[in-house]
Amino acid sequence: MDNIDAGLKLVEEQLQAITISSVSVLQEASAHIIASGGKRLRPRIALLAYTAVGGRDLEQVIPYAAVVEMVHTASLVHDDINDNGDIRRGRPTVSAQWGNTIALLTGDFLFSKCLELLTDADRRILKAISQLSTSLVEGETLQNINAGRDMLSTSVYLEIVTKKTASLFVGAAEIGAIQGGGTTAEIAALREYGVNVGIGFQIVDDLLDLVGDEVVLGKPITKDLSQSKMNLATIYAATKDSDKWRSLQALGDIVAIVELLTADGAIDYARREAEKYEQRALEAIKDLSPSAGKNGLIEIAALAVRRVK
Amino acid sequence: MDNIDAGLKLVEEQLQAITISSVSVLQEASAHIIASGGKRLRPRIALLAYTAVGGRDLEQVIPYAAVVEMVHTASLVHDDINDNGDIRRGRPTVSAQWGNTIALLTGDFLFSKCLELLTDADRRILKAISQLSTSLVEGETLQNINAGRDMLSTSVYLEIVTKKTASLFVGAAEIGAIQGGGTTAEIAALREYGVNVGIGFQIVDDLLDLVGDEVVLGKPITKDLSQSKMNLATIYAATKDSDKWRSLQALGDIVAIVELLTADGAIDYARREAEKYEQRALEAIKDLSPSAGKNGLIEIAALAVRRVK
Repeated sequence: MDNIDAGLKLVEEQLQAITISSVSVLQEASAHIIASGGKRLRPRIALLAYTAVGGRDLEQVIPYAAVVEMVHTASLVHDDINDNGDIRRGRPTVSAQWGNTIALLTGDFLFSKCLELLTDADRRILKAISQLSTSLVEGETLQNINAGRDMLSTSVYLEIVTKKTASLFVGAAEIGAIQGGGTTAEIAALREYGVNVGIGFQIVDDLLDLVGDEVVLGKPITKDLSQSKMNLATIYAATKDSDKWRSLQALGDIVAIVELLTADGAIDYARREAEKYEQRALEAIKDLSPSAGKNGLIEIAALAVRRVK
Repeated sequence: MDNIDAGLKLVEEQLQAITISSVSVLQEASAHIIASGGKRLRPRIALLAYTAVGGRDLEQVIPYAAVVEMVHTASLVHDDINDNGDIRRGRPTVSAQWGNTIALLTGDFLFSKCLELLTDADRRILKAISQLSTSLVEGETLQNINAGRDMLSTSVYLEIVTKKTASLFVGAAEIGAIQGGGTTAEIAALREYGVNVGIGFQIVDDLLDLVGDEVVLGKPITKDLSQSKMNLATIYAATKDSDKWRSLQALGDIVAIVELLTADGAIDYARREAEKYEQRALEAIKDLSPSAGKNGLIEIAALAVRRVK
């Protein structure tokens, strides 16, 4: 099988099958967050990377594409506890619907179930999953301890984003390339693709939290501003005129802050930065032979930084 | 190497080495909970099971013994969030010292780091870890949804205890037996040993929460009573005289409840039940050839149900 959409349907089936539990609330809460969809960008990247290096039977990569999505989903469920998030993908979060304890346990359940899908995996795949999940937790932690600070350097922002977000994209691309029988150079190229798409994706995610459409996004915006989490746009504005920035922050006037960010060119700056990462992602895979998989990866790089949701 | 205490020192070193992180708070919080000790019963069982089936180089089982302890530790850190626990092993819990968000992330970090130790594992070991961690989460969840209910049946209590506690003992014994090259019959015998020691251990844990010594235990007691979590002793008393039980519960008079449990024979009943599980554990391994490992396992079965902390 080489059809990506058919492959993604199998990923959905895998996600449903693996989250069956005799403890019904775990199954229901898992189904709730899994069925609420999301873009499935990460498993899609795994499938595309697999075919881009010449993999011929997508079924071989389905369980591992599902694992990447499950680690992602587990981290979202736990994030929503930490951020008191009520709405995700247009629906109540697990913590809002079942409470924090069940949400914590549902995240743990999803993590545990990943192991079940990994029992037959190539040890390089185990290593990749181990790296991405540790990196993810480290990134979340770094973000947490830096939240509420007046200022964040661009390098710390990029470290957070690389660990918190790009790690999943790196892992997805790497796992696809390993399972597809890619060469060492191809695997390295796809890792490089993943890190750049991931950073670009998160820069845009942070932008959408500032100027996105709540209805289209399915979640409230300006959350990062209320939680004092900085991003490329706010770092830009705070660096350009720190007094003005501090006084607006002190007022807590979120509408004025967003206006400033737009007028000051901070939003445009961040968008241009995201596009640079798109270019780097394309550069990383330029030597891969032409294929439908490669074309799909190019499309995703564009989508990641040009999306409105 | 065949010295269990020397092996356990290597487990400690493994635990410290694997929780190194560039994000210092994760490393500190992990070190805090790991260094606070605990009995290390589970890794000890893994090491003993390994030698009991003829394993000759304890170093072969160290990483997997460490994984069992890490899953256990991660679950304690998350438990203390859910239970608002402030003191564990005589020290502040991670959530009390660093807050719930860092505690949640520390538990996730410990979980993630397990994968790193499993990259070279026999697939049967991966399967065992996957089963024990899923079972653990399911048991915690079952306990949570049954907390606060007036009554619990003995069978549901045993299901909770089997999943929540015995799973780690089963996994520890099984992993040791697999890694030591045990036969299918030996592995099954050691699993059976693990489930019975684990159930006995938890029955006593629940007893100590009723009538244990807070100083010796290093944590406050009667927590289950305040959180309305039932155990063998309270089930016994509630079944014997449900009106009396309900009225004492309604009064919330914890001292009177503990007096009733003692006078009524509920404490003795639960202790006798625990001893039955000790006997079943010994019965399960009776056909193993005599060895220092087997003797160690027999001692642990006794310790699990006769301990005062």
